[in-house]
Amino acid sequence: MADTILSLDQLQHFARQVFLKIGCPQDQAELAVTSLLRADLRGIDSHGVARLSGYVRLWEAKRVNSKPNIRIVHESPSTAVVDGDAGLGLVVAPNAMEIAIAKAKVAGTGWVAVKNSNHFGIAGHHAMMALPHDMIGMAMTNASPLVAPTFSVERLLGTNPIAVAIPADKQPPFVADFATTTAANGKLEILQRKEKEAPLGWIQKKDGSASSNPNELKDGGALIPLGSDREHGSHKGFCLGAWVDIFSAVLSGANYGPWVPPFVSFLAPPADPVGEGIGHFFGAMRIDAFRPASEFKYHMDNWIARFRAAKTIESEARLIIPGDPEREFEEERRKNGIPLNEKVVADLQELGKKFAIEF
Amino acid sequence: MADTILSLDQLQHFARQVFLKIGCPQDQAELAVTSLLRADLRGIDSHGVARLSGYVRLWEAKRVNSKPNIRIVHESPSTAVVDGDAGLGLVVAPNAMEIAIAKAKVAGTGWVAVKNSNHFGIAGHHAMMALPHDMIGMAMTNASPLVAPTFSVERLLGTNPIAVAIPADKQPPFVADFATTTAANGKLEILQRKEKEAPLGWIQKKDGSASSNPNELKDGGALIPLGSDREHGSHKGFCLGAWVDIFSAVLSGANYGPWVPPFVSFLAPPADPVGEGIGHFFGAMRIDAFRPASEFKYHMDNWIARFRAAKTIESEARLIIPGDPEREFEEERRKNGIPLNEKVVADLQELGKKFAIEF
Repeated sequence: MADTILSLDQLQHFARQVFLKIGCPQDQAELAVTSLLRADLRGIDSHGVARLSGYVRLWEAKRVNSKPNIRIVHESPSTAVVDGDAGLGLVVAPNAMEIAIAKAKVAGTGWVAVKNSNHFGIAGHHAMMALPHDMIGMAMTNASPLVAPTFSVERLLGTNPIAVAIPADKQPPFVADFATTTAANGKLEILQRKEKEAPLGWIQKKDGSASSNPNELKDGGALIPLGSDREHGSHKGFCLGAWVDIFSAVLSGANYGPWVPPFVSFLAPPADPVGEGIGHFFGAMRIDAFRPASEFKYHMDNWIARFRAAKTIESEARLIIPGDPEREFEEERRKNGIPLNEKVVADLQELGKKFAIEF
Repeated sequence: MADTILSLDQLQHFARQVFLKIGCPQDQAELAVTSLLRADLRGIDSHGVARLSGYVRLWEAKRVNSKPNIRIVHESPSTAVVDGDAGLGLVVAPNAMEIAIAKAKVAGTGWVAVKNSNHFGIAGHHAMMALPHDMIGMAMTNASPLVAPTFSVERLLGTNPIAVAIPADKQPPFVADFATTTAANGKLEILQRKEKEAPLGWIQKKDGSASSNPNELKDGGALIPLGSDREHGSHKGFCLGAWVDIFSAVLSGANYGPWVPPFVSFLAPPADPVGEGIGHFFGAMRIDAFRPASEFKYHMDNWIARFRAAKTIESEARLIIPGDPEREFEEERRKNGIPLNEKVVADLQELGKKFAIEF
C-alpha cells in the first residue's frame, strides 16, 4: 500500500490536539509537537509521529506526567541538574537545553544533566537549538537496555545516541546524530516490515552468536555496539554507549544500564530502580568563548567545503557531511509533506478515535 | 629475539636526559617524561619511548620548540584557548589540562582548546589527571591525516582519539581511550613487524577497495573510521573523528583535516596551513557541580560492578570495563619492568650515542 502524505501543518495540528487531550499545558504541548515532528521532517521516521501512541500509552500507565514541574535541583556557574518530574522527554529536553544555553551565555559553556525524564525524540533537534546562538550544541540520552556490550550476552545499555551540532557560515551546519550501536533499532524495524535479513554485525542471538534475523531481540538477542565485533572495535562502541549512560544518568541521578525503564508501556520498569526515570545530558559552548565566531565559521565553511570536495570511490558521487541527508529530507518534506506508512496511519486513526480528534 | 626488559626508573632516567639534551627546562622535561612513559606503562607501546627518537627528529627539523612559552590567548569563566608555542604535546597537554581543572574548580567545568602543539602521547593520561580532583576528565587530539571518511579515497582525518576518565569509589576508575578508527595505526605496525595480514575493514586501498595488507598506507591507502563500512556504521566513526578534529583545531585555531602536519619529520607540513600546529581539546567536570561526589562514586561502583558481573559468551570469561587492560598492564609493568622490542632498543641506543647518554 502506498504511503499517505500529510503536510507538516496537518500533523502538527493533530499531535498538538493529542498532547492537549492528555493534559499538557499549551506551551509544553507546543514544545512536544516541535520536538516530535522534527524527527519526521528529518527523515527519522521511527522517532516521530510513529511514537505518538507510545507516549500516550506511557501517560495512560501513569509513567508520564503531562503537567511536570521541570526544575533545577543543583547548579554551578556552568552546570545544572534538572529534575524532569516524569514529564515527556520531548518537553523536558528543550527546557534543559535552554538552561545550558543560558549558562553558556554567562560562563562560556553550559552543561545540564537531567533525571526523571522520558524518551526525548531525536537528539539532533535539541543539539541544534544552540546553533542560532552561535553556540555548539550537544545532546545525549540513555534508553531502554537493548544492547549487549562486547562479550556480554546480557542487554545492559540502550542505543544511547550522541548529537553534536556545529554552526558554519555560508555552509549548512555540521549536525552529527547517531546511535552508538552499529545500527539503530529503527533500521531493524524497517527490515522486519520488509521481511528482509539484517547484515551480520548488527545483532546477536541470546547466546551471543551472530544473527541476521531482525526479530532476534524478541527472542532474547541484542543489538551490538558500533564496531560489530571486538576485532573491528565494538569495545569502542561500548565505550561510547557507556559514556552516554554515565553522563546522562550517573551524573544526574537517573536510572542507568539495565535499570533504565523500557519505552514500551507493556513492560514494567525494574522493581529495584537505582535512580529516577531516564537521563539525558546536554551541552552548549559559546563559540566566542574560544575565538571570534566569524573566524570560527569561516574555518568551518572551509572544513566542510574541503571534505565535501573529497575524491570518492567510484560508486559514490559525494562524501556525505554529517547532517546533509537529514537537511535534504527536511527541505523536501516541509515543501511536499511527510509520508506515513499504513501502520502509522492506522495507529494515528486509532488515537484520533480515542480522543475524538479528526485525523 | 626476546624483548629487553627495563625498569620504569631506567627508562624515565634515559628519557629525562634526552629531553634535557634537546633543551627542555627541568620542569617541562619532567612533564614530558611522565606523559611519555605512561604509554609504555599502560601497554600502548606505540606511543611511548618508541616515539622518543621521532620527537627528537621533529626538534632537529625545528618543528618542535623545546622552550615553549605556553600561554592562554583567550578565555571565559569555563573556557580557554592555549597557544602551545610549538612545544612538545607531551608538555603542552598537561599544562592545558591543569587550566581546565583550575577553571572547573571555580566554574564547575573547564574546557580548553589548544593550538600550535605537537603529538601529545596517549589521550588517557591527560584525561586521568582530573581523577584525583573528583572530576571527570576528557582529552582529544587531531593527528596526521591517515583516515579516509566513508566513501572518500582521500586521507582527510587522523586517528583522532577520545579519552574519558570517570572516578569511582572502591572500583578503579572508568577510563575509555580509543582511536576513532576501526583499528589504531599501532595495531598495523604490529602486523607489519609480524608479517601478518590485517582483518578486512581496517584499511582500504588507494581506490577505496578492501585490503588486508598492513602496508597499504605506504601505497596511498587509508585507515577506515570505526564501523568498517557504511552498512556497519563507518559514517558514525567519521562523525566521531570529525568532531574531534573540529573541537581540537577549528575551535582553537590549529590546522585541521588534511592540513594537519605529519608526525614524521621527513614529510614536510602542508605549504598552505590553515592554522598553527596540531590541536587538542580538554575538559574537566567537577562531579559535585552535578551531585555530591560520594553519591556519584557509589553509583559508579554499582555501575561498574553490574557490568563486570555480566553473563558473557562462552569463549570469554569476563566483560572488560574500559581501562581494565591498561590498568593491569600498569600494575604489572611498574613491578616487573617494561619490555622493549629490539627495534626500539636499537633506536634508543642510537639516541644514547647521539647525546652521549648511557643506555
